[in-house]
Amino acid sequence: MSIRIEKDTMGTIEVPADKYWGAQTQRSKENFDIGGESMKMPIEIIRAFAILKKAAASTNHELGVLSEDTADIICKVCDEISNGALDDQFPLVVWQTGSGTQSNMNVNEVVANRAHVLLGGKLDDEQKKVHPNDDVNKSQSSNDTFPTAMHIAAYKMIVEQTIPKIESLRNVLQEKVEAFADVVKIGRTHFMDATPLTLGHEFSGYVSQLDHGLKALRNTLDHLSELALGGTAVGTGLNTPNGYADLVAKKIAEFSGHPFVSAENKFEALAAHDAIVETSGALKQLAVSLMKIGNDIRMLSSGPRSGIGEIIIPENEPGSSIMPGKVNPTQCEALTMVCAQVIGNDTAISVGGMTGHFELNVFKPMMIYNLLTSARLLGDASQSFERNCAVGIEPNYATIEDKLEKSLMLVTALNPHIGYENAAKIAKKAHKEGSTLRDAAIELGLLTNEQFNEWVVPKNMIGSLK
Amino acid sequence: MSIRIEKDTMGTIEVPADKYWGAQTQRSKENFDIGGESMKMPIEIIRAFAILKKAAASTNHELGVLSEDTADIICKVCDEISNGALDDQFPLVVWQTGSGTQSNMNVNEVVANRAHVLLGGKLDDEQKKVHPNDDVNKSQSSNDTFPTAMHIAAYKMIVEQTIPKIESLRNVLQEKVEAFADVVKIGRTHFMDATPLTLGHEFSGYVSQLDHGLKALRNTLDHLSELALGGTAVGTGLNTPNGYADLVAKKIAEFSGHPFVSAENKFEALAAHDAIVETSGALKQLAVSLMKIGNDIRMLSSGPRSGIGEIIIPENEPGSSIMPGKVNPTQCEALTMVCAQVIGNDTAISVGGMTGHFELNVFKPMMIYNLLTSARLLGDASQSFERNCAVGIEPNYATIEDKLEKSLMLVTALNPHIGYENAAKIAKKAHKEGSTLRDAAIELGLLTNEQFNEWVVPKNMIGSLK
Amino acid sequence: MSIRIEKDTMGTIEVPADKYWGAQTQRSKENFDIGGESMKMPIEIIRAFAILKKAAASTNHELGVLSEDTADIICKVCDEISNGALDDQFPLVVWQTGSGTQSNMNVNEVVANRAHVLLGGKLDDEQKKVHPNDDVNKSQSSNDTFPTAMHIAAYKMIVEQTIPKIESLRNVLQEKVEAFADVVKIGRTHFMDATPLTLGHEFSGYVSQLDHGLKALRNTLDHLSELALGGTAVGTGLNTPNGYADLVAKKIAEFSGHPFVSAENKFEALAAHDAIVETSGALKQLAVSLMKIGNDIRMLSSGPRSGIGEIIIPENEPGSSIMPGKVNPTQCEALTMVCAQVIGNDTAISVGGMTGHFELNVFKPMMIYNLLTSARLLGDASQSFERNCAVGIEPNYATIEDKLEKSLMLVTALNPHIGYENAAKIAKKAHKEGSTLRDAAIELGLLTNEQFNEWVVPKNMIGSLK
Amino acid sequence: MSIRIEKDTMGTIEVPADKYWGAQTQRSKENFDIGGESMKMPIEIIRAFAILKKAAASTNHELGVLSEDTADIICKVCDEISNGALDDQFPLVVWQTGSGTQSNMNVNEVVANRAHVLLGGKLDDEQKKVHPNDDVNKSQSSNDTFPTAMHIAAYKMIVEQTIPKIESLRNVLQEKVEAFADVVKIGRTHFMDATPLTLGHEFSGYVSQLDHGLKALRNTLDHLSELALGGTAVGTGLNTPNGYADLVAKKIAEFSGHPFVSAENKFEALAAHDAIVETSGALKQLAVSLMKIGNDIRMLSSGPRSGIGEIIIPENEPGSSIMPGKVNPTQCEALTMVCAQVIGNDTAISVGGMTGHFELNVFKPMMIYNLLTSARLLGDASQSFERNCAVGIEPNYATIEDKLEKSLMLVTALNPHIGYENAAKIAKKAHKEGSTLRDAAIELGLLTNEQFNEWVVPKNMIGSLK
Repeated sequence: MSIRIEKDTMGTIEVPADKYWGAQTQRSKENFDIGGESMKMPIEIIRAFAILKKAAASTNHELGVLSEDTADIICKVCDEISNGALDDQFPLVVWQTGSGTQSNMNVNEVVANRAHVLLGGKLDDEQKKVHPNDDVNKSQSSNDTFPTAMHIAAYKMIVEQTIPKIESLRNVLQEKVEAFADVVKIGRTHFMDATPLTLGHEFSGYVSQLDHGLKALRNTLDHLSELALGGTAVGTGLNTPNGYADLVAKKIAEFSGHPFVSAENKFEALAAHDAIVETSGALKQLAVSLMKIGNDIRMLSSGPRSGIGEIIIPENEPGSSIMPGKVNPTQCEALTMVCAQVIGNDTAISVGGMTGHFELNVFKPMMIYNLLTSARLLGDASQSFERNCAVGIEPNYATIEDKLEKSLMLVTALNPHIGYENAAKIAKKAHKEGSTLRDAAIELGLLTNEQFNEWVVPKNMIGSLK
Repeated sequence: MSIRIEKDTMGTIEVPADKYWGAQTQRSKENFDIGGESMKMPIEIIRAFAILKKAAASTNHELGVLSEDTADIICKVCDEISNGALDDQFPLVVWQTGSGTQSNMNVNEVVANRAHVLLGGKLDDEQKKVHPNDDVNKSQSSNDTFPTAMHIAAYKMIVEQTIPKIESLRNVLQEKVEAFADVVKIGRTHFMDATPLTLGHEFSGYVSQLDHGLKALRNTLDHLSELALGGTAVGTGLNTPNGYADLVAKKIAEFSGHPFVSAENKFEALAAHDAIVETSGALKQLAVSLMKIGNDIRMLSSGPRSGIGEIIIPENEPGSSIMPGKVNPTQCEALTMVCAQVIGNDTAISVGGMTGHFELNVFKPMMIYNLLTSARLLGDASQSFERNCAVGIEPNYATIEDKLEKSLMLVTALNPHIGYENAAKIAKKAHKEGSTLRDAAIELGLLTNEQFNEWVVPKNMIGSLK
Repeated sequence: MSIRIEKDTMGTIEVPADKYWGAQTQRSKENFDIGGESMKMPIEIIRAFAILKKAAASTNHELGVLSEDTADIICKVCDEISNGALDDQFPLVVWQTGSGTQSNMNVNEVVANRAHVLLGGKLDDEQKKVHPNDDVNKSQSSNDTFPTAMHIAAYKMIVEQTIPKIESLRNVLQEKVEAFADVVKIGRTHFMDATPLTLGHEFSGYVSQLDHGLKALRNTLDHLSELALGGTAVGTGLNTPNGYADLVAKKIAEFSGHPFVSAENKFEALAAHDAIVETSGALKQLAVSLMKIGNDIRMLSSGPRSGIGEIIIPENEPGSSIMPGKVNPTQCEALTMVCAQVIGNDTAISVGGMTGHFELNVFKPMMIYNLLTSARLLGDASQSFERNCAVGIEPNYATIEDKLEKSLMLVTALNPHIGYENAAKIAKKAHKEGSTLRDAAIELGLLTNEQFNEWVVPKNMIGSLK
Repeated sequence: MSIRIEKDTMGTIEVPADKYWGAQTQRSKENFDIGGESMKMPIEIIRAFAILKKAAASTNHELGVLSEDTADIICKVCDEISNGALDDQFPLVVWQTGSGTQSNMNVNEVVANRAHVLLGGKLDDEQKKVHPNDDVNKSQSSNDTFPTAMHIAAYKMIVEQTIPKIESLRNVLQEKVEAFADVVKIGRTHFMDATPLTLGHEFSGYVSQLDHGLKALRNTLDHLSELALGGTAVGTGLNTPNGYADLVAKKIAEFSGHPFVSAENKFEALAAHDAIVETSGALKQLAVSLMKIGNDIRMLSSGPRSGIGEIIIPENEPGSSIMPGKVNPTQCEALTMVCAQVIGNDTAISVGGMTGHFELNVFKPMMIYNLLTSARLLGDASQSFERNCAVGIEPNYATIEDKLEKSLMLVTALNPHIGYENAAKIAKKAHKEGSTLRDAAIELGLLTNEQFNEWVVPKNMIGSLK
């Protein structure tokens, strides 16, 4: 491999000749050989950095502390990063310094060196036309840029990916609510037969869960929209020009298309990541909801002959390598595995969030890695579940009717007429003898055949709840 | 012990003669010998039941399905329970049936039997004047009453205890923000010396954390204000009179003084407890914040001679049984232990919340036990920390000034004048030689004594952030 | 309330006249009003202190640093505490100083004052015959006594309660393995019908889980048997006589009947509580196992008419306040709620364990509170589940046979004869047409009636695994 | 992209013409678009499959159910997979069916098709010489192969990577114990100054933690060495020849070089993954330990001028993008972030482990993904921390001596001579007046200068603990 020599305040170091990164990136690459390729700093963070570096350069120029030429060339390289043209220039892993300084410097170095080349320089020139710290990082510190990138990346993914995908699943489930509005079926509490409801009712509970979860997730966006940028090293804004914090936030909002604002308190914004904790909490709530929904769907579709079998789900693939003809609720399984992961990620995020000290939390890369993973997985799994399972769910009418008919819990309809204790006698007798409620009731002399016909009507037991 | 015989649909059973509870309570007591005295169903749940049973009786009467006399006597007993007069009548533990049916029946039995006695009956009468199921539980099921009691109890505790106590701590910290606004001190990032800020800045970060946490907690109240009551067995509202759900919620709001409403979707309200998950998530976020705050305070007060020692906290008790004269940050310790507990409780709640099936989640008692514990502990510990620690925090001026003066990170002020790399040379030289920045700078010929005086002024480095 | 004046190195304070505790206990009581009555320091910790204080007094005397008279009277009071005679003398809560110093002093003060009274003194004498620090706490520090009490209390509960109760459940399940050895039934994977096995096989999986879990739990006892005592303030053993650490551990082993030893490294024993983390991890593993078992049992017993219904569990109480005659798997519910709690407690313990600093972990009371809670709940719930559910489980032969007979997955037996793909054709045809495998197979011409009879025999499909 | 048509029991599907995988792999790829490239099934699982498929083919041949030619060619392809030659043939993600069936079929298809090609066939031949189910998967089911691959992959990584890397760190720390045996320093409890110990003592606590953690981790290997293979679909071993389970385990042991055995109970081995839960628990314990160690190291090295600064750690890179000359404890940060992740992964694993049902746990891919991630991260981070930090740690003698000298807690040495209360008076006076203990003691008349010289000698206060 061809190399060139780069230097920083620690001295010189060999860097691949064809890469734009510099000495600090290279040091991190060598000093943090942890976790391998699959645990690189998420590309969403790099892209978020491109937005913020562009906003900073533009702001610095507007406020008179950076020349137009330098600002322009920085913005140009940031656009290249945004477009994915430089994706192979960011080799660092999540498990680096806890402030993300090395990824900030990776971006600074790539922008400075690429700018130098675009301006006609060569990578091995000793003097570069753009300086990673003094120009690209001007009016910034890792301590305010990295949390800013965290919020940009998280906000974008949640608003652009997670919410729309979960909403889309929610809408497909709502279609089922309407389609199944008249499918009266047995209810189950404690896994035991209970009074009837409709299949639409069951799905309406899922929709309500997702509606509440989406509302809770949206509630967290305010906190996530607050940007640390302008706080620099410890939150005081040292080395920033007047008006910088608000203007740079405005530009980030413009460049990203999302309503970002400058955090009112920069000290919190560097020292704590409660916004990440808050958003992760909402994702966890959705994971809890989707776990319940996924479990219900697979149990309702269980069988085909010895389970509950009240719904039919799409057959997408052979289910077993040994049992021929087997069909499994595989989408439910992927979904619920994702939910377990999101719950675990939330624990990791809590541990990271609680362990910040003084002016800086140094669990930043770990926290955002987990949040982005959770946000992406929940969205992707919801979409996969929607498209490959939910949309195709159909009632198994024969099974539903068969189970409803023989249910002993229809006896509950008799409470207002003969009282709880008499009703219990009927149910117990029918259960013990394997007979019907009707036979047991008449045999006990508690009511007549006509009364039974009038009082025990499943479709009258499902209420008229709005 | 004197006993009497009670019966239910399973048969007869011996009950202490002087207790109001009946057969089902007694069965639970005997069948669930788990966890002992300290793990009884929280009294807040019993009190919440008193409100809802009163509201149900009143609604049932108003809607014409319960006689005035019966409704009145039920209401009267409920008031006794609310006043604490019957606290020793609720012997059941958290670890019972997961629907809380047995605690619902405990309340039904106590109300019915106490009403019978108030109406002139005797506990060992075979026929009681009020029936636990047909009267006290009329238009209800454990499946909708228990989650209603969960929401009432949680909402009340959070609004009446948790929020006010955390707010009060927040206000005391805000007083410190103002009192310490001019105390310039060294900042710390990565536990290492960094550029300066004020002690007020540090406390403003804590206030901002609590403000965001309280907002997040308040955001969850909407979901918590939704009541399951009216859903009865599976959410359909079977055996309830027309208009029942809305009216009973209105009465609960009136009796409790909180804005409860009937849940729009009763199926979710029985089958899932995402509202509990949601509120627990917000409490966990506050725990994460308070852990950070508690850790900072104890580290800032560390010493007295070999730590950081920049603040002085009240001495409340001898700190050590072996080391004479030792003072410890004990309030920080209680607070942070509580935070760890709340984080653990949140995991338990998530596990419970995700494991509901079909029409009913049966982790109800465990979930509300953890939520009430978290809400109470966070409130109590915040109050204790406020009164016994926060209010008395004072700066240790001598230490603060001494540490600020010798800080090498004041060099950052030179970046705009001589560039990052030259500034680094100065800091490294001073660090290596144990000298001052001034001496190192002048010796390196990078600036004059006058320039140093002009450029390196800690109080000019703390920004003017609003 | 009558009071007396006590004093410590901070000054004087009022104490209830009839209580043995002194100034430091009183200060803690007043300064830590957190969590209320139900969150007192577990009595098991107080009892463990009684053992260790007795062992320390005895050792101090034997090594010549405490008079025989003083040692004797201390031992006598410790015996009173062990017998429960002084239980109302320990009013402090878990949420105090994180070293447990205040509970150590509570014990020191009660022992000293009670000894003074036993020696003829009065509680309001200014000079006491026995000093809480110089005599009762001699050769000790809270920093080594509290972790010693943690290990004694945890070891005792796990060996005396948790393991025997889980083992007893395991043995009842093993009886079911044998009783159900010939009950051939359908298997289920992915909740879907699969090839057959016996009901005994299913229960053997549960037994194997518990065997592995108990082994894992026993593996942690070594670490838990190591005692910190002798380390005093920071682990060096300052102010202890020669030979103290080993002798006092030997005496604790003798007094408690368990094989305690002096920890090889006292610095770890004060600064970290990885032994608690380790044991909690094993309890969590058992919780995971019991959650699986509890879930299986309740699903296998689901119905009575619309569930799986392959086993019958005991009816212990009426299941519903609204649905007459309902029987629910309530013991499974209590058990699985306990499992969720244990999993949450493990998170709290991990958070506490990871947050020790320098020479002392100050999450001690929280950690031991959670460990004792988990150990007790798992034991109690296992016993309750065993006695009120497991022991009475019976197969529902009719349902088992019915479901087995109509299973499509018996087709798997044909793989070796006609290949996976042909077998799949048969299963799919039978499923689509609602017919039997036999009919589908013959209709497809893939085998004869005789071959079907020979090859598809459920009892030949259950293997002969050792 | 050039394509070919593949088929399975569901019908035909287009597959990239140059890939060895078949219809089922392709279906999974299309049906589970979740998480993207960075969340592919870990390559360690694929490699483990290569070992087990080779062992199965060899066993099948030896037991007379597979021809020598077919067995040989299967073994040959498995060796290619083991050597990494076919790594690009396994495109599936973690988030697929919860049994891992699709990855099992991915391996079956690649082996069958590659074997077909090696035997002279072409990928688009309709009839292949080797069948993925009937040959490659012979005597197997996904339900026993996937958990077998889980155990092989986990065991190998833990024994070959995690343990050696943590042991190596432990050994470097032990070298420090010896090197720092005479460096007397101040102790700290509650973050407050305490009695002295040596720097070697502190490091000995870390070594003891790791020794206990490694022992706990090794304790889990027994469970992990048990293989499910031979259980096939539900644990009964249907469709396996006599003697298969033991022989195939023996071959896996031989091929892998690790002492694998056939699981005594196959029902547990499919239906539960408590072995994964158990091993994850031990990794979590090590994470808790390493979190403590990492935190201590960064706080001990804090400064350089306003922290504790008792040790010096290597400078590996510039610490700040804005603060020139800053050096940060970056290795501690990467290590502690990894610890937080491992704690979170453990929660995810617990949730997955507890949610198995009946004959199969279907959280398999998620569970092993988290376990392998934890095992790798802990090993890698320990190695990075060792090489880039621990090995270079040196005492900062000047700071250590300065802090020791002025410590007030040396007063503890006076307890045996003048009693706890008098000693407290001295410490309090010195603290209040900012004077030395000596001056305060003499001024109070509690001892003479000579007595102070004799009694208060830090190096006599550090004990002689073995």
